[in-house]
Amino acid sequence: MTIDPRPIGIFDSGIGGLTVLAALQRRFPRETFLYLGDTARLPYGTKSPETVARYSLRASLFLLEHGIKALVVACNTASSTALPVVEHAVTVPVIGVVEPGARAAVALGAHRIGVIGTEATVASGAYPRAITALEPAVEIVAQPCPLFVPLAEEGWFDHPVTREVARTYLAPFRNAVEVLILGCTHYPPLKLAIEDAVGPHVRLVDSALAVAEALAAMQADGRVAPAAASGSARLLVTDAAARFSRIARLLLPDVDVSLELVDLPTYPSA
Amino acid sequence: MTIDPRPIGIFDSGIGGLTVLAALQRRFPRETFLYLGDTARLPYGTKSPETVARYSLRASLFLLEHGIKALVVACNTASSTALPVVEHAVTVPVIGVVEPGARAAVALGAHRIGVIGTEATVASGAYPRAITALEPAVEIVAQPCPLFVPLAEEGWFDHPVTREVARTYLAPFRNAVEVLILGCTHYPPLKLAIEDAVGPHVRLVDSALAVAEALAAMQADGRVAPAAASGSARLLVTDAAARFSRIARLLLPDVDVSLELVDLPTYPSA
Repeated sequence: MTIDPRPIGIFDSGIGGLTVLAALQRRFPRETFLYLGDTARLPYGTKSPETVARYSLRASLFLLEHGIKALVVACNTASSTALPVVEHAVTVPVIGVVEPGARAAVALGAHRIGVIGTEATVASGAYPRAITALEPAVEIVAQPCPLFVPLAEEGWFDHPVTREVARTYLAPFRNAVEVLILGCTHYPPLKLAIEDAVGPHVRLVDSALAVAEALAAMQADGRVAPAAASGSARLLVTDAAARFSRIARLLLPDVDVSLELVDLPTYPSA
Repeated sequence: MTIDPRPIGIFDSGIGGLTVLAALQRRFPRETFLYLGDTARLPYGTKSPETVARYSLRASLFLLEHGIKALVVACNTASSTALPVVEHAVTVPVIGVVEPGARAAVALGAHRIGVIGTEATVASGAYPRAITALEPAVEIVAQPCPLFVPLAEEGWFDHPVTREVARTYLAPFRNAVEVLILGCTHYPPLKLAIEDAVGPHVRLVDSALAVAEALAAMQADGRVAPAAASGSARLLVTDAAARFSRIARLLLPDVDVSLELVDLPTYPSA
């Protein structure tokens, strides 16, 4: 079997993608990961598709220059609006979070699927497109939840305020869908409040786990060769490392967050 | 009297500065205003001082190139962390929001002053410095309120969730200060919820009104010559004009928001 010791690149606008990194590290303990949080330009979720594409391209080219063997776009907003641009620009296999999430939801056999995400993700229609491509007969309801990201970053995972916000946003889903896709990597820490708001019969799909499945499939069919060493992760951010560390410790107490601050060059095509 | 028909430049990371624009338009109906919302890089409030300085400089130089006669830094985060850099780089009088807000609070004769703002504004210590420079004997309590900006942008001005968040953040101020400075241009729309949380004996200082006072003083002493025409405002944003318009209509139903999308050049010194 071919071995490829090069790192797997992961990028997100900020810390949300760490939920994806954590899932990948658990599933692929021998891989090395290079994570880039583009904190100088976060959030992506309220920006235009053109701007998100420009920022995503810049982050992807930066990781490519660091010799990655595959790229995980761990941000739902970037995956929803910029994946074709990124795939066109980089020379390694690219995994977004939308298609794996859609696949996991459809695999549960649901007829009514809910999607929550940032304004940009919901406006893009990427999830409905991905779901319908897999299973045209599914009914889809999507809802932006702009306050979930700041609530997660404040560490109010199961705060009464978060429960009230969840009840307000998620009323249309309560006992009305069979599956709800958490279409933003910031949402998994809010799972308890979300479950409480949608009721006990709605199953949640966490795209971090779905991405690990997608990478496993790529290794199985030889598109990405595995590493053989004992794995590690290197974390880079473009700004405000102290804030990132504080929130990362809150979101993912088990992940080791040693950070390096980097500047992204401006690429001619980005 | 000298007349100067050139516009007054105003910049903010996004829409918050519109509360300052509205106050200036009411007070100076003959002036022309050129407003720049740097929405491609918002928010500034969670970024590092170095990054805020770089972004602020870029926005200020852009407005300077458009022939302004004075510059209002209508963003508390930029005023708190980047004002010296901006003052050094531009050749016209500069007005920040911090010093006028501090002056207005001290003028009320308070002995205990509260300050709320973004993480970056509070971490900078700019308000305590400005207040102490005017009146050393004042006691100052500062508190970041990260959820207030997204709540204002969601239009939940007087929502039960906003009242609960305000009660949580503002408990230290309740009947414990005489004056509370709204140290973020996003906060005035949340006034009712804030007043309810701090109690009836705490007076709120809105820096938008304080900035109008500061500009009036600059006109009175001849540092900024007035215009004589019937005024107007031109609004520029660097991204996501549709989102800006929607939220601007929510925050300031009376302001005419016709927008132009612009790209900021990268200046060698910015």
